[in-house]
Amino acid sequence: MKEFKNSKDSLSILTEVVLPNDTNNLDNLMGGRLLHWMDIAAAISAYRHSNSIVVTASVNNVSFNHAIPRGSIVTLHGKVSRAFTSSMEVFIDVWYENRIGEKIKCNEAIYTFVAVNKDQKPIKIPQIKPESIEEKTRFEGALRRRQLSLILAGKMSPDEATELKSLFIK
Amino acid sequence: MKEFKNSKDSLSILTEVVLPNDTNNLDNLMGGRLLHWMDIAAAISAYRHSNSIVVTASVNNVSFNHAIPRGSIVTLHGKVSRAFTSSMEVFIDVWYENRIGEKIKCNEAIYTFVAVNKDQKPIKIPQIKPESIEEKTRFEGALRRRQLSLILAGKMSPDEATELKSLFIK
Amino acid sequence: MKEFKNSKDSLSILTEVVLPNDTNNLDNLMGGRLLHWMDIAAAISAYRHSNSIVVTASVNNVSFNHAIPRGSIVTLHGKVSRAFTSSMEVFIDVWYENRIGEKIKCNEAIYTFVAVNKDQKPIKIPQIKPESIEEKTRFEGALRRRQLSLILAGKMSPDEATELKSLFIK
Amino acid sequence: MKEFKNSKDSLSILTEVVLPNDTNNLDNLMGGRLLHWMDIAAAISAYRHSNSIVVTASVNNVSFNHAIPRGSIVTLHGKVSRAFTSSMEVFIDVWYENRIGEKIKCNEAIYTFVAVNKDQKPIKIPQIKPESIEEKTRFEGALRRRQLSLILAGKMSPDEATELKSLFIK
Amino acid sequence: MKEFKNSKDSLSILTEVVLPNDTNNLDNLMGGRLLHWMDIAAAISAYRHSNSIVVTASVNNVSFNHAIPRGSIVTLHGKVSRAFTSSMEVFIDVWYENRIGEKIKCNEAIYTFVAVNKDQKPIKIPQIKPESIEEKTRFEGALRRRQLSLILAGKMSPDEATELKSLFIK
Amino acid sequence: MKEFKNSKDSLSILTEVVLPNDTNNLDNLMGGRLLHWMDIAAAISAYRHSNSIVVTASVNNVSFNHAIPRGSIVTLHGKVSRAFTSSMEVFIDVWYENRIGEKIKCNEAIYTFVAVNKDQKPIKIPQIKPESIEEKTRFEGALRRRQLSLILAGKMSPDEATELKSLFIK
Repeated sequence: MKEFKNSKDSLSILTEVVLPNDTNNLDNLMGGRLLHWMDIAAAISAYRHSNSIVVTASVNNVSFNHAIPRGSIVTLHGKVSRAFTSSMEVFIDVWYENRIGEKIKCNEAIYTFVAVNKDQKPIKIPQIKPESIEEKTRFEGALRRRQLSLILAGKMSPDEATELKSLFIK
Repeated sequence: MKEFKNSKDSLSILTEVVLPNDTNNLDNLMGGRLLHWMDIAAAISAYRHSNSIVVTASVNNVSFNHAIPRGSIVTLHGKVSRAFTSSMEVFIDVWYENRIGEKIKCNEAIYTFVAVNKDQKPIKIPQIKPESIEEKTRFEGALRRRQLSLILAGKMSPDEATELKSLFIK
Repeated sequence: MKEFKNSKDSLSILTEVVLPNDTNNLDNLMGGRLLHWMDIAAAISAYRHSNSIVVTASVNNVSFNHAIPRGSIVTLHGKVSRAFTSSMEVFIDVWYENRIGEKIKCNEAIYTFVAVNKDQKPIKIPQIKPESIEEKTRFEGALRRRQLSLILAGKMSPDEATELKSLFIK
Repeated sequence: MKEFKNSKDSLSILTEVVLPNDTNNLDNLMGGRLLHWMDIAAAISAYRHSNSIVVTASVNNVSFNHAIPRGSIVTLHGKVSRAFTSSMEVFIDVWYENRIGEKIKCNEAIYTFVAVNKDQKPIKIPQIKPESIEEKTRFEGALRRRQLSLILAGKMSPDEATELKSLFIK
Repeated sequence: MKEFKNSKDSLSILTEVVLPNDTNNLDNLMGGRLLHWMDIAAAISAYRHSNSIVVTASVNNVSFNHAIPRGSIVTLHGKVSRAFTSSMEVFIDVWYENRIGEKIKCNEAIYTFVAVNKDQKPIKIPQIKPESIEEKTRFEGALRRRQLSLILAGKMSPDEATELKSLFIK
Repeated sequence: MKEFKNSKDSLSILTEVVLPNDTNNLDNLMGGRLLHWMDIAAAISAYRHSNSIVVTASVNNVSFNHAIPRGSIVTLHGKVSRAFTSSMEVFIDVWYENRIGEKIKCNEAIYTFVAVNKDQKPIKIPQIKPESIEEKTRFEGALRRRQLSLILAGKMSPDEATELKSLFIK
């Protein structure tokens, strides 16, 4: 196993067409279907980083700000932003193409995956070496997001969350 | 339109069987499929509360702590916990049944929906009157979660988040 | 194994949204899709009663009297009405919600399931103790329906069908 | 519109492969999926007889006596057995092929369809002229089955059911 | 194993209804879905000829000349036209029915399948004895098409393709 | 409308996971499902080149030389190789990833699409300006393949096929 891998080596690209059964009563893409697609994009990135079986551990806050009509082409990019002992944070960026061929950014989401063996026990994985500016920003933010998760899950007290605390107290 | 409705009037109950195509390489339910089912449960609750078309606005942090094997029966309960002008916070509780018929709580998620008209413009909806202790706790927490969302989305400064701040500063 | 279980302990509740692929050329729910959903509701009830693998043995007469449009929410309730040595009669009641939020009863069906082991051999199951008036009526009718099934399948002569005969001869 | 059409002109033949998602926990075809396929076969036959939109009106007693394993090839034949003013009785015969290529008869079902126009109003359809012995037997039995349906639906008193009564009183 | 089997013994008949999710943005059947259905029809024919597991080896040129609207009934006939040592050429003929019940021929395709055992090794299969004029024409053309395939795959030099050459040089 | 566009501007990338329902009785990807995915990849490329509705016109010879097991990740790249008046030739290259993370080239296919307006009439599209060596080779071969198609469809006599003839006569 390599000790470090680049963020971009885990890139996954999915392209989906919004079919009738993916739409709600307004003929727009259902939020739940997009969450499903993002999970698959993230799982493939996590698999490419860890070369092992991966399972979804959590999903961060996701917002839906664009109505995506039936027949649209939706593109999803997944990329591991940071690896911990056996878990990985994966960013998913989503665009859709409108009628005149413009690509519009419509979503950003963060999923966490865990690499496991056949007995579903967590295994050790390579660390991430971020390169681009965006990769570095996301790499650094990962720690703060992890503390927030742990607090929300009741596994860390707000006092211990040094990174996060600095957001509220200057 | 009624001014107030009870939380329990929006209850939705979904029961799903984990079929082969819902599973990952460990023959357990994929996280993305569960996110999709939770979106449908939440949408039905939001529809029952607002009697209008509803669209997913956001998903809060969701954790996956249980592997749910192929063939399991999964039950989802959705219930609107609090309504704002045109948006609703919906709690989804998820259980699955193991081989000896025990129901095991496996997930809890919070989705936010917006009620819209045919032109996709937000419309006014009834408020929630919580009754049980759990309904009241969730009703009260909704405000704090909303502030966190707004901060994470960059639409509120941490200083304004009075409710949330109290978590970090005593 | 308990000797008796209540009818209501086997209750299953399914909620389905009518998606485009579930509809016929009039944009209404196809009968076959509803038969499929009723089979799943009934299977879950039969599983909850018997705590074993269950297989569909037969479907009684089912009528379709309501057109259920695309986008409707359909709710199915399954409940075991009577258990025999290893077979169970399950009632499925179906409602759909129209645009103004009214729930309309649209179907009633009766499926029979058999509890089997891994080798597909029938196994002994608990009996039903009906409680409500509806549960008692359905429990009593089950015997008459069983005779009719056996006659139609050529496994009983009309003369032996004491319960059923009384319908025709006073 | 022709006044009479032959039964065999409405023949529909469907061939389906039992895929993983069609199976229960024993890896055999689910009853509900077969009911769905039979509905499609019957709908196509009814369409071919009436050349109009058709909707499922009812399903007669269906029995499931064979376990059909994953990967099997299932063949369904639908054929209109008798036409009334605007409704049609359709017989569906089902076979599956085992590993050594033998075709085994596994099911027989009777569905009733109604021919309608775009406004969902029943329309007049051609009558059936049965030819083969089987077609004639099924044509004659259709009347008796119709009386039974009407009695079970509470739309005919057992006394009026001349055809059916003769089964019980000699 | 029989040494020879008739072409017609491998006949497979599939009937499919064009559902919303099978259509493109013009509400017509997508080419890819039809290719999928043709593969299933061909696989069933190949299975019926060889009584063994079969896998797709190649698809010949397929043209799409008719738009097939949503709700159409599509009928596919598959039939093995010629067998080689362990591979089979299968013809698929496709019709669809328009609103007034006419059946219109819309496609013809040629797929090649290989019969294999559980270890995915090719096995010996019966030869085809063509009977009708069409069966004989297709049987004879199979050799020419095979040479073309082998050339396109770079496994035969154009000089060796005696049958095919005669098309270009008189 | 631009007169020329680069081949690489039409690139589409699809990533699919082989789910249970995509597999045959050997638990490998069915050929028909891959043909379906390739059609979608090609359609998206054709759409990106023409910015109009596109319909499948034909599929060239496709070979299947690799068994792709359940759970594999399959990546498809589509790219328009040459445009004619209103039709486009699209190359699809397919890889899958094995257990140790190697990407293996498994398929190459050529689909032809036609750009149409809402009335399904062909419309004029930009031409392709090939850049890389591979793009140039594919661009040049397109003419030869078109002649072969026209001959096989009986729309050109072999004598007129100057490009193609040179393969057989030196």
